[in-house]
Amino acid sequence: MKAAIFKGKKMIEVGQRPDPRIQDPTDAIVRVVRGCVCGSDLWYYRGINQHRVGSIGHEYIGVVEAVGDDVATLAVGDFVIAPFTYNDGTCPACQAGFQSNCEHGGAFGNGETDGGQGEKVRAPYADATLVKVPGAEAEFTDEQLASFTALSDVTCTGYHAAVSAGVRDGKTVAVVGDGAVGLSAVLAAKKLGAARIIALSRNPARQAVAKEFGATDIVEERGDDAVAVVLRLTDGAGVDAALECVGTDQSIATCAGIVRAGGMIGAVGVPLYEEFEYKTLFWKNVGIKGGVAPARQYIPELLEDVLAGRINPGLVFDHTTDLDHVADAYAAMDERRAIKSLLTIGRG
Amino acid sequence: MKAAIFKGKKMIEVGQRPDPRIQDPTDAIVRVVRGCVCGSDLWYYRGINQHRVGSIGHEYIGVVEAVGDDVATLAVGDFVIAPFTYNDGTCPACQAGFQSNCEHGGAFGNGETDGGQGEKVRAPYADATLVKVPGAEAEFTDEQLASFTALSDVTCTGYHAAVSAGVRDGKTVAVVGDGAVGLSAVLAAKKLGAARIIALSRNPARQAVAKEFGATDIVEERGDDAVAVVLRLTDGAGVDAALECVGTDQSIATCAGIVRAGGMIGAVGVPLYEEFEYKTLFWKNVGIKGGVAPARQYIPELLEDVLAGRINPGLVFDHTTDLDHVADAYAAMDERRAIKSLLTIGRG
Repeated sequence: MKAAIFKGKKMIEVGQRPDPRIQDPTDAIVRVVRGCVCGSDLWYYRGINQHRVGSIGHEYIGVVEAVGDDVATLAVGDFVIAPFTYNDGTCPACQAGFQSNCEHGGAFGNGETDGGQGEKVRAPYADATLVKVPGAEAEFTDEQLASFTALSDVTCTGYHAAVSAGVRDGKTVAVVGDGAVGLSAVLAAKKLGAARIIALSRNPARQAVAKEFGATDIVEERGDDAVAVVLRLTDGAGVDAALECVGTDQSIATCAGIVRAGGMIGAVGVPLYEEFEYKTLFWKNVGIKGGVAPARQYIPELLEDVLAGRINPGLVFDHTTDLDHVADAYAAMDERRAIKSLLTIGRG
Repeated sequence: MKAAIFKGKKMIEVGQRPDPRIQDPTDAIVRVVRGCVCGSDLWYYRGINQHRVGSIGHEYIGVVEAVGDDVATLAVGDFVIAPFTYNDGTCPACQAGFQSNCEHGGAFGNGETDGGQGEKVRAPYADATLVKVPGAEAEFTDEQLASFTALSDVTCTGYHAAVSAGVRDGKTVAVVGDGAVGLSAVLAAKKLGAARIIALSRNPARQAVAKEFGATDIVEERGDDAVAVVLRLTDGAGVDAALECVGTDQSIATCAGIVRAGGMIGAVGVPLYEEFEYKTLFWKNVGIKGGVAPARQYIPELLEDVLAGRINPGLVFDHTTDLDHVADAYAAMDERRAIKSLLTIGRG
């Protein structure tokens, strides 16, 4: 089958990988309909984080093409959304709703496991991992397909930031980071009832999506200047929740600077920070929670929102291409021509 | 007036300080009835943390002896509990319920401000700071006075650990630290409905108080061995909440090791850790929240519990002496002859 192959820094190519086959009776094989490029893929692409040579892409939706003998809830032809990590559904972490910490879980597209930037994927623990979409692929619009694809990771990751920070009705929230995750965090804060959502962004296209998603204020400043502006906007108090969607020392320092005494930081940016120390938060009674989003926990609820037309998370995709042009999908994001690139793989 | 004077490492003496007087119209002067020695005082005593030469002691209860012209809710003769920090009641932090982060607040007994280990204290922002006990000092038993004194800091600090970690009905909680704060955290977890409370302690006297306060399991191991035992007790899952009541690298590492994926660390031990990094928690989806307890937020609720006989937090005091013997009060804790020392100052 055709699949994107990560070969090293700035080297993504279209190549061949073996067609996946059922290996365990709990497996399903999924024909990919849409994949996409994650901000974390971009960090591999840029050489900031390491990635094995091989398969890549952990976000996808598709149609079940085969199931193992022990798969009970899925059948050939089912249209599914995959969370970016697979999970057994039975270990203590899964039972607690944190499937991304599954004892037997792992990530798609890690160089060895099949990636979402490819024609097919073997999905382990298919019953526990995949979420069935009610309806056939052909029944949905491109816009809906884009939103389903967003649920695979980025929407859930933004939601995890807001949930972890305890965002709820009436709260004042600031989102640090205007990438697809940050924008999704704006959407999440809106969904959870935040009264005021301050988005930090100096990019007009991203500001527009942030506003569409529910941002009430845009702050263009960065670093200490951003802290000063957010404090001014909140009468010196700071925000109830700061959503950290970048992962750098500057972004987490901004969060620490803008959150009120007793507030929370929801942290989902992959931690690249080296200087940040929790004890600086201790003295302000500020907490921090987040991590690798348990997308599998959130997808069903967010899928209902998409199907009901309450949210349109696929708006984070502003560049669409096909698998043959996967290198351009990366380059567009790398050059900041695109917020996030969608890959039309199985239909289009 | 007579007051304890901190003179340096292992040097606490009884000396003289000027009688406090009303300086601002929002002040009250309180004649101290009970004071006590805090674990953090002990760290000054041991030279681990620095403290100015002068007044010391931030926990006290007493009787109002004078009020400034702007004090509206308190009168001479009122019996009050002081939280260990004073606060204006009006700044954003106070309004958010985090009075320990008050913009105009400060600590009692910091070398310059009057301390609770002395005969009298000037309490700034008296209306906002002091909590009135319904009844005269003489109406209460020594046991109740001890519990009121515990509310000044240690009970609230333990409660803050549990509240910050989101402890509630049915949760499994572990408490790391068997000092007075740790024991108070056990009490707090019980009050909040925890189904299982695992106390880490190898000291029989402290184990006894932990059990009295609601501990269901005692773990005598430390470090990696403690982690192994707690994981075994929880079928490999870990606890929903780990309450960090020490502040060292070992204690916070133990918390990180025993908390389940997606769980919380409630951190109230004054941070002495140097190696701990938040990002190690990120990968387990574990959060951390805590800080300097907003005792003023919690005292009214906990006072009701004491008055109703539902809790007896004063059990953390197992050594009682008077102000003339304050040096022994410290030595008893330093030598681990006592969990926590109570000082009878104005009565008894």
